[in-house]
Amino acid sequence: MKYVFGADIGGTTVKLGLFDDQINLIDKWEIPTDKTDKGKNIVGDVCDSILAKMQEKGIDKADCIGVGVGAPGAVDEDGVMTGGAVNLGWDVFNLRTAMEEKLGGIKVIAGNDANVAAYGEMMKGGGQGHKNVVAVTLGTGVGGGVIIGGKLITGSTGAAGEIGHIRVADGEEEKCNCGHTGCLEQYASATGIARLARRRLAKDDKASSLRSAENLDAKAVFDAVKAGDEVAIEIAKEFGSYLGKGLASVADVVNPEIFVIGGGVSKAGEILLSFVAPEFVKYVFPPCKGAQFALATLGNDAGIYGCAGMLLSDI
Amino acid sequence: MKYVFGADIGGTTVKLGLFDDQINLIDKWEIPTDKTDKGKNIVGDVCDSILAKMQEKGIDKADCIGVGVGAPGAVDEDGVMTGGAVNLGWDVFNLRTAMEEKLGGIKVIAGNDANVAAYGEMMKGGGQGHKNVVAVTLGTGVGGGVIIGGKLITGSTGAAGEIGHIRVADGEEEKCNCGHTGCLEQYASATGIARLARRRLAKDDKASSLRSAENLDAKAVFDAVKAGDEVAIEIAKEFGSYLGKGLASVADVVNPEIFVIGGGVSKAGEILLSFVAPEFVKYVFPPCKGAQFALATLGNDAGIYGCAGMLLSDI
Repeated sequence: MKYVFGADIGGTTVKLGLFDDQINLIDKWEIPTDKTDKGKNIVGDVCDSILAKMQEKGIDKADCIGVGVGAPGAVDEDGVMTGGAVNLGWDVFNLRTAMEEKLGGIKVIAGNDANVAAYGEMMKGGGQGHKNVVAVTLGTGVGGGVIIGGKLITGSTGAAGEIGHIRVADGEEEKCNCGHTGCLEQYASATGIARLARRRLAKDDKASSLRSAENLDAKAVFDAVKAGDEVAIEIAKEFGSYLGKGLASVADVVNPEIFVIGGGVSKAGEILLSFVAPEFVKYVFPPCKGAQFALATLGNDAGIYGCAGMLLSDI
Repeated sequence: MKYVFGADIGGTTVKLGLFDDQINLIDKWEIPTDKTDKGKNIVGDVCDSILAKMQEKGIDKADCIGVGVGAPGAVDEDGVMTGGAVNLGWDVFNLRTAMEEKLGGIKVIAGNDANVAAYGEMMKGGGQGHKNVVAVTLGTGVGGGVIIGGKLITGSTGAAGEIGHIRVADGEEEKCNCGHTGCLEQYASATGIARLARRRLAKDDKASSLRSAENLDAKAVFDAVKAGDEVAIEIAKEFGSYLGKGLASVADVVNPEIFVIGGGVSKAGEILLSFVAPEFVKYVFPPCKGAQFALATLGNDAGIYGCAGMLLSDI
């Protein structure tokens, strides 16, 4: 049997997976992400963990097809973290060759974490059966991954799919993390939904269960939506309008078959899609309006699946 | 020697080109587009013209690698005009197989006209040397073509690259041809620039040479810009702001190396780019800001070059 590893490097933990060459998950585990010293131990820790797993399972190097790795930053086709990875403390370097060296020549492929998760969802998750997929991650921020003809688009500097920074509103006064204003991320991320909620509640005194919510977060908003709270429904409609408008722009450019919505916010379930799809149709160029909407299904495992799949698609 | 034909079907004329297998242009000519009877004679006319040229030049079928054809409408990967071609009167049909039949089995590849022109500009025009190119056509409308890793993106229904319908403004009251409002095309096309000019002149009485322009069109605006007319410069800045904002959304999705700007409006020359590039940087996700801007160089020949190149890239 031949084996593939996936390693999804996040700001808190590194998720690792061992797969067979049909991308069936054999084992998964996590190690902490050591961000001390500008994250200089992370690559070694990940490689040590993979080599230890190979020993534990009695896997020869000859039977290891390779390792796919995802990291939170722009990664170009050669595996260079072109803008470093601010969350990990990394400067610009070639993640692929650094890992290949530590792994004694095992083949490595590197990609952006959101792109890799998108690829996982296409292969084994909510986008299964489709070749033109845009995956949207609604988490602390809004990330995305664009897959065309079954291949991930990385772009010229590895920053393709950064759909959270599409401008969807004029006149916004708060700044996005990227330095601009009116970015999709400011309204459709978990923090963005909380912002919409705070603003709506401050606008007037209309009764709402959200006024007594312990945490005025995306979960509280969608829980209140499900309970029929009118103010929460208004907030969800505003969220859906921004996200629908942003995804319409994406569809005008790449005309996908399906949008797969994941990330923490998507735990709200199908009801979330019901606020987005009708708004999307309002804004999208009519020949692109057939795009479907589905929820991501792999959760936190999307990254390791995508890493393994990306590696296999490259051999 | 082996030969390739390109046929760029437009609403008034069909442009045809004969190329060698290195995409050097050997001969080019035009025939009128016969839109009578829902355009049912067009395919036959184009094929007859190609067969006549083969006879004239003494080209055997065995030496003809194939024909690339571009048409004004969405074309899927199989060559089906998925939405017909309203401008030609065409309903939905398979353009590729229809032409292959008329040509007695010569291989045909079909694509959308804007996409095909984009491909031409990448290969032999303003985008030469790049593999990740977005071509933007500023004509009566705003069209686009997206090339990733040297391959045209067609999208799931052949409507990828329809960047003219990205929403760049809220509150627009006039409708775009697509039925929505606030589309990029409403501000950055030739008709869009004329609209911006009319609106600006109506706003106040500020002196401007444009007030006595015979035709208040895009050419008049940019001629006045070159002469230093302040009102014209304001109009060009507004145009640049909308186009920069729209192209920033495109860059956030596909992160191209270069935008190649063509179409009638681009005849204004380099000065046009000077209004777009700085606005683009204001809106784009910073890791994507390195995208270059260049003018298209092939003019009306971009389509025939792209048709020939598309055919050669498929064999």
